[in-house]
Amino acid sequence: MAKIKVGIAGATGMVGQRFVQLLESHPWFELSELAASENSAGKTYQEAVKGRWKLTADIPEYARKMKVKECLPNLDCQIVFSALDANVAGEIEQAFAKKGYIVSSNSRNHRMEPDVPLLVPEVNADHLRLVEKQKKNRNWKGFIITNPNCSTIHMVLALKPIQDAFGIEKVMVTTMQALSGAGYPGVASLDILDNVVPYIGGEEEKIEAETLKLLGKMKNGKADNALMNVSASCNRVNVSDGHLESVSVKLERTATEKDIVKAFESFNPLKELNLPSSPSRPIIYREEPDRPQPKLDRNNEKGMASTVGRVRKCRVLDYKFSVLGHNTIRGAAGAAILNAELMKAKGYI
Amino acid sequence: MAKIKVGIAGATGMVGQRFVQLLESHPWFELSELAASENSAGKTYQEAVKGRWKLTADIPEYARKMKVKECLPNLDCQIVFSALDANVAGEIEQAFAKKGYIVSSNSRNHRMEPDVPLLVPEVNADHLRLVEKQKKNRNWKGFIITNPNCSTIHMVLALKPIQDAFGIEKVMVTTMQALSGAGYPGVASLDILDNVVPYIGGEEEKIEAETLKLLGKMKNGKADNALMNVSASCNRVNVSDGHLESVSVKLERTATEKDIVKAFESFNPLKELNLPSSPSRPIIYREEPDRPQPKLDRNNEKGMASTVGRVRKCRVLDYKFSVLGHNTIRGAAGAAILNAELMKAKGYI
Amino acid sequence: MAKIKVGIAGATGMVGQRFVQLLESHPWFELSELAASENSAGKTYQEAVKGRWKLTADIPEYARKMKVKECLPNLDCQIVFSALDANVAGEIEQAFAKKGYIVSSNSRNHRMEPDVPLLVPEVNADHLRLVEKQKKNRNWKGFIITNPNCSTIHMVLALKPIQDAFGIEKVMVTTMQALSGAGYPGVASLDILDNVVPYIGGEEEKIEAETLKLLGKMKNGKADNALMNVSASCNRVNVSDGHLESVSVKLERTATEKDIVKAFESFNPLKELNLPSSPSRPIIYREEPDRPQPKLDRNNEKGMASTVGRVRKCRVLDYKFSVLGHNTIRGAAGAAILNAELMKAKGYI
Amino acid sequence: MAKIKVGIAGATGMVGQRFVQLLESHPWFELSELAASENSAGKTYQEAVKGRWKLTADIPEYARKMKVKECLPNLDCQIVFSALDANVAGEIEQAFAKKGYIVSSNSRNHRMEPDVPLLVPEVNADHLRLVEKQKKNRNWKGFIITNPNCSTIHMVLALKPIQDAFGIEKVMVTTMQALSGAGYPGVASLDILDNVVPYIGGEEEKIEAETLKLLGKMKNGKADNALMNVSASCNRVNVSDGHLESVSVKLERTATEKDIVKAFESFNPLKELNLPSSPSRPIIYREEPDRPQPKLDRNNEKGMASTVGRVRKCRVLDYKFSVLGHNTIRGAAGAAILNAELMKAKGYI
Repeated sequence: MAKIKVGIAGATGMVGQRFVQLLESHPWFELSELAASENSAGKTYQEAVKGRWKLTADIPEYARKMKVKECLPNLDCQIVFSALDANVAGEIEQAFAKKGYIVSSNSRNHRMEPDVPLLVPEVNADHLRLVEKQKKNRNWKGFIITNPNCSTIHMVLALKPIQDAFGIEKVMVTTMQALSGAGYPGVASLDILDNVVPYIGGEEEKIEAETLKLLGKMKNGKADNALMNVSASCNRVNVSDGHLESVSVKLERTATEKDIVKAFESFNPLKELNLPSSPSRPIIYREEPDRPQPKLDRNNEKGMASTVGRVRKCRVLDYKFSVLGHNTIRGAAGAAILNAELMKAKGYI
Repeated sequence: MAKIKVGIAGATGMVGQRFVQLLESHPWFELSELAASENSAGKTYQEAVKGRWKLTADIPEYARKMKVKECLPNLDCQIVFSALDANVAGEIEQAFAKKGYIVSSNSRNHRMEPDVPLLVPEVNADHLRLVEKQKKNRNWKGFIITNPNCSTIHMVLALKPIQDAFGIEKVMVTTMQALSGAGYPGVASLDILDNVVPYIGGEEEKIEAETLKLLGKMKNGKADNALMNVSASCNRVNVSDGHLESVSVKLERTATEKDIVKAFESFNPLKELNLPSSPSRPIIYREEPDRPQPKLDRNNEKGMASTVGRVRKCRVLDYKFSVLGHNTIRGAAGAAILNAELMKAKGYI
Repeated sequence: MAKIKVGIAGATGMVGQRFVQLLESHPWFELSELAASENSAGKTYQEAVKGRWKLTADIPEYARKMKVKECLPNLDCQIVFSALDANVAGEIEQAFAKKGYIVSSNSRNHRMEPDVPLLVPEVNADHLRLVEKQKKNRNWKGFIITNPNCSTIHMVLALKPIQDAFGIEKVMVTTMQALSGAGYPGVASLDILDNVVPYIGGEEEKIEAETLKLLGKMKNGKADNALMNVSASCNRVNVSDGHLESVSVKLERTATEKDIVKAFESFNPLKELNLPSSPSRPIIYREEPDRPQPKLDRNNEKGMASTVGRVRKCRVLDYKFSVLGHNTIRGAAGAAILNAELMKAKGYI
Repeated sequence: MAKIKVGIAGATGMVGQRFVQLLESHPWFELSELAASENSAGKTYQEAVKGRWKLTADIPEYARKMKVKECLPNLDCQIVFSALDANVAGEIEQAFAKKGYIVSSNSRNHRMEPDVPLLVPEVNADHLRLVEKQKKNRNWKGFIITNPNCSTIHMVLALKPIQDAFGIEKVMVTTMQALSGAGYPGVASLDILDNVVPYIGGEEEKIEAETLKLLGKMKNGKADNALMNVSASCNRVNVSDGHLESVSVKLERTATEKDIVKAFESFNPLKELNLPSSPSRPIIYREEPDRPQPKLDRNNEKGMASTVGRVRKCRVLDYKFSVLGHNTIRGAAGAAILNAELMKAKGYI
């Protein structure tokens, strides 16, 4: 099978760098195009990210000499992974989709549009069907799919098996989010050393809205919002990677702690598809009282799993637990790649 | 007025050190005795804390040469401030109270006993009356009063004006607690660098139980528990001092955001008493979207105030906000000293 | 005595903020003018630093409502403290000096000019005499004096008593510098968490050159460079404030460890002048094997002292020790204020 | 070829854990025995390290169920890797060697004994010959070899090519050492957050002494100390893994910067031996002005390489540079394993 050519729009930022890293030797996709702002266009990728490459491992050899192009819909590829800044992502992604590209976006711009799938493959794979409507509505040859905000993804992965088994009425979450979620240079060191910042602009609104769409059901070709209340409080902590979240849920039906742990541990809806980036277990449950921890659990399943721990009774809602996941892998670039793999497996490509 | 002689039991640990620091030049109290374990007894205070003095400012001159004694009820003082470890505090504090000492304890051992006041002066000063019953019940000449856990104090300070004005049905709190709360050596650096630990042994239970007692009303000489549900999730973050808490509340009566902010800002029940350690404002409300922060707000009012910010609607309960306070000053040693000042002002000494 | 009116050029940056803080209630100086870039001009100081005030303590009340002006030589003040960026400081400072202002600058631009005093009052107060030549050379009514780079100041304070007593041939220094030295936003948190960066642009050259000028002698109205070799290696560490330096020296004459410690402890050349910002001891020597430490020693003498420890034999040069000091107080704003106080005391104002 | 059975003495500490990790699937060695203190003996390895496993990756599956034994010379293995505490390592290692075991030790106890090789394979492989004398001197069937202190190894790797090409007269080094070097729990978080500690007990002496032995030549069956002066200043920084060192050297013969970089880059004395743990390049030279950095370079070549950067003139000695390496891999467990591989390749096993 010939590999599918893919490009990255916004290739020089932190999420763009993760795309480059995760697409190295991908079994289905071949990175053929790197695109970024005018400043970078014309340079080799190596030059373009000079002084801004922020992953611990070096720039993969295969991408160093690739020429960076502008984000115009004339790239030689079938899929465009978008890691664009929200202030430009809207129009650029539309331009690509109009011309027939499949856009798998990590940007927030189109997430909440009714005909754009907001997708976590283990959670709402059937929302992919919205793309038919999208193409028709907009008279586009291509289409846009999106993945949620980094905090939302990991929480929703943990909520989904609970929703399926017991129903969910209410969700309260307090996040402790990593620095890489703010991009680069992002958070100034003087602002976060020996500190926590109890605010991340726009984040609480995103978590509250996206969760409802993700956990909603398809009905008559539309994705209805889930009927639940979600409340989020977001904090920035001095951690490089890995968002930790304290979550409480009110269930529709009774369950024991064991029931809930079992729901986590048996959750694996994509098992049959064998997607290349799919974790062997999307949720890892740790029994220890002090897990999950960012430092110890963010790289589980190459950063593609959510790790859950501390399931216990909640005196206000029903149960509470902690969930942790890598914010720039499963929470961003890895999510968009998994979405593209799902499209391929489902015949959309 | 001659000053009241006071001693510290457990003077060499982190909270003990804070007592020594905060009692320097106290207008009402004179530190006359330092007591600690057998290991330290007989040494000067300076020798006893050698290599273990963990406050940024040096050991106060006045305490350096004082001889450390054993924690036996033969100290030359009227009040004993207890910063003892929970594994020894129970018996030692009782021994002192039996002999006629007034024990103002930061330890958890006696907090939940029905005839022992668990006290935050701005919140439940009238609980002091329990000491009459305590002396009678136990046939003691002295008595024990206690202050709550460090996380509880700051949350309850913020809850009190809301309870008074609008009633509270439910409270959810997620804490992000500082390292000094674990004492010294406490948390290993390798466990917390680039990390958050979602667990502090016993802490959630303390917050959930103590809050009910503190917000309960005196009735027929007994302190009834408040009728509300409290759920706590506790996390340790890489911050030296200052516990930050994300709190959501369900009210009994409707209120606007402005009403709640006004309740915070007008809260000052101790104003008339002019206690030496009393902050001029027990709650400081910050309008900025990203406050309170440990680094910026922990030392407000010399560490004796709680700082609150981000009052906003909660989609699951009614309102949410962040509260922050110094955990070893207002959250421990300063709390016990303020309690003693209240006793003095109320004529119990 | 009426206070001398002073202004701050570059009042909104990190060093500018320190000037505002340190000049509050200054006994000799009255802050009458705040000047900054066009962006800030016309705003109140409070508005101008909104979101950029980075000191732990809040903006002093006295400065909040002051109007920020442009950095033009029409300010109503006699002394201008300059905290300007190096890319604009050169011309602006000259413009002020030409018009008759006394400029006490923290910027690097004029430091190495032969007729500009590079001044640490305890070290080379006699270099002040260069200002006569400067005024004459340049036909200016006012003049410029400068303080050294933050790392240089603390090292030179420690070297001076050694030079006076035993002579110095060679100096090797490795610095571990704080984040605030890079201004704000400065170092990105992702670059320094769990890391050290072995490079600070231009810093090694500044330390090597400035030290020679500072330790040089006045001769025939000129400041000769000291005849010694200085080699610096600079590292950025994850510390908010306080530069720590490992220093080795080769002496001209023999000395014992005790001799050197005694030289540190007896060093107090400004004692008689009673300058308001002068520390009671410019060098604090700590006997403990693990001092000085940034967290424990940066605020000694309100951040105006250098703290030294660990004097011991060096197998390559003669002796080595560690020195630590606050980089934005004694290392910047406090240094420039002390220089102005010296000028006043010496009759230059 | 049947694998050689190896055991670990001190298997539960931080370096012991690294041995367990690095020996997984080793092509020449098979881990057959785990030994530790009485407390751990009898437990499975998993139980023994419960709450103390401090590597980011989980306990390797292969070791979990292995029974931990006491450190007595009745283990079923040929080589014993020692990660014992210095207070017990001396006698235990001797007991093993006496009984015929080959002991490859990371402990400091025997390092400086004249008949014990202190070994870095790329630096002084010929010192292995000392074991003949050792066996004879002590009438032992087995023998002890040692690897140096973690800071020494990386510095000496960088010094060796310079020594070979240009000779070295003097070495000055200031270290910035990682937390894992202090073991677990090691450094308290309150001592190192927002701080640097300018002291590590015994470390400077070790670096100064071990370097001379390592760079010394074999002559008449003895390892003479190198004739050079070494001076070390050691600091602890808030970094998890990776010691960074600022080094200056005085050469015996002239060299250009390019010469020195070339010496680093062409250094690969073990190339022909193809040892399994040998890095393909023992020294990686980075051209960027701000490398090496702990976070970015500690894992180069699976933690077995030293990374060097910033070669430049020194105004006091001749040249200076920075060197960085992983302190518990190449600086400890990996070093001892590489030493054992060398022994095997050289026919000592």
